[in-house]
Amino acid sequence: MKKIILMLLFSCFSSVLFGHQNVLIPHAVDHDPQTSGNRFLQQHQSETVALQNDGLSGAYDTSQPQDVMISTKGGVEFTTNDGEFSFQLGGRIIVDAAVYSEDKNTLGNGSELRDIRLDLEGRFYADFIYELSIDFSDGEADIKDAWFAYDANYPWRYTIGHFKEPFSLEEMTSKKYLTFMERALPNAMAPGRSLGFGMNWVGEQTTITVGLFGDDYNDDADDEGDEGWGATGRLTYAPLADQRSVVHMGLAASYRKIDDEQEFRFDSRPESHLTDIRYLDTGKLNMSDSITLFGLEGAWVSGSVSFQGEWIQALLERDEHENPGFSGWYLQGSWFLTGESRHYKQRSGRFGRIRPLNDYGAVELAARYSTLDLNDAGIEGGSSDNITLGINWYLNPQVRFMANYIIVENDIFADADGDVNGEDEPTLIQFRAQADF
Amino acid sequence: MKKIILMLLFSCFSSVLFGHQNVLIPHAVDHDPQTSGNRFLQQHQSETVALQNDGLSGAYDTSQPQDVMISTKGGVEFTTNDGEFSFQLGGRIIVDAAVYSEDKNTLGNGSELRDIRLDLEGRFYADFIYELSIDFSDGEADIKDAWFAYDANYPWRYTIGHFKEPFSLEEMTSKKYLTFMERALPNAMAPGRSLGFGMNWVGEQTTITVGLFGDDYNDDADDEGDEGWGATGRLTYAPLADQRSVVHMGLAASYRKIDDEQEFRFDSRPESHLTDIRYLDTGKLNMSDSITLFGLEGAWVSGSVSFQGEWIQALLERDEHENPGFSGWYLQGSWFLTGESRHYKQRSGRFGRIRPLNDYGAVELAARYSTLDLNDAGIEGGSSDNITLGINWYLNPQVRFMANYIIVENDIFADADGDVNGEDEPTLIQFRAQADF
Amino acid sequence: MKKIILMLLFSCFSSVLFGHQNVLIPHAVDHDPQTSGNRFLQQHQSETVALQNDGLSGAYDTSQPQDVMISTKGGVEFTTNDGEFSFQLGGRIIVDAAVYSEDKNTLGNGSELRDIRLDLEGRFYADFIYELSIDFSDGEADIKDAWFAYDANYPWRYTIGHFKEPFSLEEMTSKKYLTFMERALPNAMAPGRSLGFGMNWVGEQTTITVGLFGDDYNDDADDEGDEGWGATGRLTYAPLADQRSVVHMGLAASYRKIDDEQEFRFDSRPESHLTDIRYLDTGKLNMSDSITLFGLEGAWVSGSVSFQGEWIQALLERDEHENPGFSGWYLQGSWFLTGESRHYKQRSGRFGRIRPLNDYGAVELAARYSTLDLNDAGIEGGSSDNITLGINWYLNPQVRFMANYIIVENDIFADADGDVNGEDEPTLIQFRAQADF
Repeated sequence: MKKIILMLLFSCFSSVLFGHQNVLIPHAVDHDPQTSGNRFLQQHQSETVALQNDGLSGAYDTSQPQDVMISTKGGVEFTTNDGEFSFQLGGRIIVDAAVYSEDKNTLGNGSELRDIRLDLEGRFYADFIYELSIDFSDGEADIKDAWFAYDANYPWRYTIGHFKEPFSLEEMTSKKYLTFMERALPNAMAPGRSLGFGMNWVGEQTTITVGLFGDDYNDDADDEGDEGWGATGRLTYAPLADQRSVVHMGLAASYRKIDDEQEFRFDSRPESHLTDIRYLDTGKLNMSDSITLFGLEGAWVSGSVSFQGEWIQALLERDEHENPGFSGWYLQGSWFLTGESRHYKQRSGRFGRIRPLNDYGAVELAARYSTLDLNDAGIEGGSSDNITLGINWYLNPQVRFMANYIIVENDIFADADGDVNGEDEPTLIQFRAQADF
Repeated sequence: MKKIILMLLFSCFSSVLFGHQNVLIPHAVDHDPQTSGNRFLQQHQSETVALQNDGLSGAYDTSQPQDVMISTKGGVEFTTNDGEFSFQLGGRIIVDAAVYSEDKNTLGNGSELRDIRLDLEGRFYADFIYELSIDFSDGEADIKDAWFAYDANYPWRYTIGHFKEPFSLEEMTSKKYLTFMERALPNAMAPGRSLGFGMNWVGEQTTITVGLFGDDYNDDADDEGDEGWGATGRLTYAPLADQRSVVHMGLAASYRKIDDEQEFRFDSRPESHLTDIRYLDTGKLNMSDSITLFGLEGAWVSGSVSFQGEWIQALLERDEHENPGFSGWYLQGSWFLTGESRHYKQRSGRFGRIRPLNDYGAVELAARYSTLDLNDAGIEGGSSDNITLGINWYLNPQVRFMANYIIVENDIFADADGDVNGEDEPTLIQFRAQADF
Repeated sequence: MKKIILMLLFSCFSSVLFGHQNVLIPHAVDHDPQTSGNRFLQQHQSETVALQNDGLSGAYDTSQPQDVMISTKGGVEFTTNDGEFSFQLGGRIIVDAAVYSEDKNTLGNGSELRDIRLDLEGRFYADFIYELSIDFSDGEADIKDAWFAYDANYPWRYTIGHFKEPFSLEEMTSKKYLTFMERALPNAMAPGRSLGFGMNWVGEQTTITVGLFGDDYNDDADDEGDEGWGATGRLTYAPLADQRSVVHMGLAASYRKIDDEQEFRFDSRPESHLTDIRYLDTGKLNMSDSITLFGLEGAWVSGSVSFQGEWIQALLERDEHENPGFSGWYLQGSWFLTGESRHYKQRSGRFGRIRPLNDYGAVELAARYSTLDLNDAGIEGGSSDNITLGINWYLNPQVRFMANYIIVENDIFADADGDVNGEDEPTLIQFRAQADF
């Protein structure tokens, strides 16, 4: 009897739940002003409308109702029961303030919106995924991720659009999850995001990612010269990737042909974004033909303690000039007073979100030494060392406050290509409030 | 007995499903920082809050719970069961690359984000619909559609805001559904989107759309002169509009009073967006008083084969100058190797989304000839012919790849108003990856 | 028996409803191109994935399924059953047109998008709320609200980010709910939005809001000088705050240290946004050290009739110059012909949404006198009086049309800092169509 009632319940439930979804207005209905007329009338004329909107029914008949699961963590996520379609909408708000103990130059105390970002991502027809992420923090629309990928040939994935070239553990890790407020000095050499095509292979301990890239989406060579292009690849190997024990190793290389203007420039702020002074600056190097990058990465997590380091080298090829080489590295350590571990994601070879173990949140102490040298072959781009002490308070998985104390030591050539005084040795204190949803 | 149980189930189910929606926080609750205090406290003080937030209850009492249907195709759509409210969120990612076989000028090989678009649309209080569509592909926020409409007086609809003036079959068809990567050369004369008020009437075979328009949302006459305005109308007639057989005819006219600066300009790239060279360019024509446009359109679909063509003429009225006339036309054919038909939408008189019949998708071959002549009455804007061969692969209804091979023939005056060499005859190859959700 | 069946139903229902949510893909799954591989495979490997994505389970274990309530009013809102998480997405479209009966200067008839806004707001982990609101009407991304707040210490709330400094009843009231199309002339002195930290206390009749602020998010002192900062507070007292009877009193003060450039400027358009002429303009006042503001506000609602007024004074402190003082005030009255009352929100001390009582909507007549005097201490910023007559038609709670007739009277110094003729006395007629969702 019980069984019968349960079966009845199921069928009844289903008819209610799925039944009322049959009146779903077909997805393809137009809402444009020149289009469709009153929706209620459309329903009364549903036969005609169905023909018009669905076109031929075939492999991609979408008239079946969907059962959709919803989740919200401040943003919102939908997934169809069959997992073939999903949609996720979220964002982040990052607010910074900085006070500079100035030495030879004024750096400009103040506050800023560091990130104001909207993120859409989803899956459709089971095989395709996409992400669209735009930053508005400067009052413009700075496109970050804008790509879609074919994801039905595991362990391979094929991606097209605007996304990060696979280079550097710190670059691959989202700013939301960085241990310090800003990436280390050598990050000035990492390629960042470009328009391109990428392939990604994932094994149990290994990931391989390669890509062919054009320029960044808003780069365009002057006088209609050809844009540049690059090829970048990264290999990661994690013999240990448990929840509280990680050994990560990685190496990456990148070659980039510079566009028809043949101008190349490396520059870098100190590890603070609020000031606009880029002490390190090679200036525009003309007759630049290509740049080749090498990167080595390592990370080690043991319980609440972790270490991470990277070394990056850049070799520039110039016509009629000596070929300069630049390099930099950093080493950092972190300790969770409250017992958490840094969260390593083996499948992407990078770090992720911290989930506090206690109601009052998680507290992390961290220190970093980083150095970058842009002086070589007669180019006086400057050299700088930054020592950072940091403390992070994760109130919950989506809110954290950060404070960084940074000691900057610049050489005589670190003069923003002549705009400021070299040998500047300021001390920086900066604060961050971050929420993502 | 079964009946009784089912009834019980229904009532029980309803009480559960709708019951728990009674605790829905009222829509009007404020989340602003200076506002509402803790939500849980609000619930405990629900009587007070209800009074505060709902104001007077009357014709628009919104305290009833809603039963909402959800659908996702990568984006997401909600509709209340009564159909009175709906909301839809989606977007698109379009990535292009182009390689130019140059003749007399450099055109700039490269890649770009062609469209990065966010789309919101919906219905509220049954009678009103809206659409908000913004493009971010250039790193700015380019507003496309931003309108709302009264939609409760079928077959009429009244629209206000920023939307396309009703002119040209190709212009009215979304870029997502175009047969070629770019619209044909004569599209340089179509008015595009403006701020205005429109009326739309839909019959069984006929549509009539008329509108009164100001300028585009970001046009503003210098020195606080008055903006221009225009009136545009389009009539379409489709004696045959089956799924696989279509005969479409249309005519349109537009009059535009030019703003107080009295400067007018037509210009056009070749049928490739990546290059910034606009070979055809009248330059700024001063003392321009008004422009009058005429357009003729025709389309014929028979199974997998279709043809489409348009002719557009523009007559410019100038003070103290001869009045020039410009014109252009195109003719295109397309054939689906895989058996699909182009999808005609009679109610809006334009083409829509292709749904592949097979798992491996749909393949379409297409060819187009187009021409535009901007030489007249002493104005040497140039004349150009473009021949395009295209192949499209629709992987599913929301993803397609396109390749276009374009032969460009310019006359001696097609020199970008003097900036480049005329009589240029380059060949263009361009590729597109497109996903919408 | 009935009881047993009902209990069965409940348990069964729950198992179905919550059961199928168990297959929810965990929120933390990566969709990035370098990441996760096929989702279906992930599900088959769910044990591994769960370990990877959820990190340590502890205080913030998020693996439980959620039951989510949905509501749409054209936009969309989600709330978990426990009320701990919510998400809301909406926007607004405001279109204006203006016709100027000009006197001594041309003002530029035309139309514009006044507001094109996207709004996200939500709650997460019960304790935190946020809002993200961006305006795109000028083709850029103008960040309005971008803040998050700790909201679990009632009656206190602590807010961080970019939001309105608490000053002026009219400034605190959303443009969506203003009685006239534009705020009154003295609003030129209200601080508006800045980056900062605020505290808000709510009592039964009283609200207190104080904040410490940096500059607006896109202000940055030149030459890396320090940014300015300010402190602002507002106190409101509403001895009567019923649905149809309101007595509101408020006072506010603000101190602002001007940034290292020491330049200060007040300017104001007439009460019409479409023209770009700012008759009132002090020009850039150098050697400005600080500005202190005082504001008084009052409002009285009795049934369909209401009155509202404010007085604002600004005292500027300058080095080596006389210290000028500027002031202005307005008084307005409104009458709903159709019986509605203005909707006062005691908890935030401002006005809100009108809900029409009848199917044909609500009609409101209104009049306002406002004045602002920027002449003092040798500064000839001009003085102006604006008299406005307005009529508003609220078609439903989310759509309204407005018309304003404005008589402008400027003194001889109201010459846009020398750019136009003073003593201009034009008459302005402007129209608005507004929808929010």
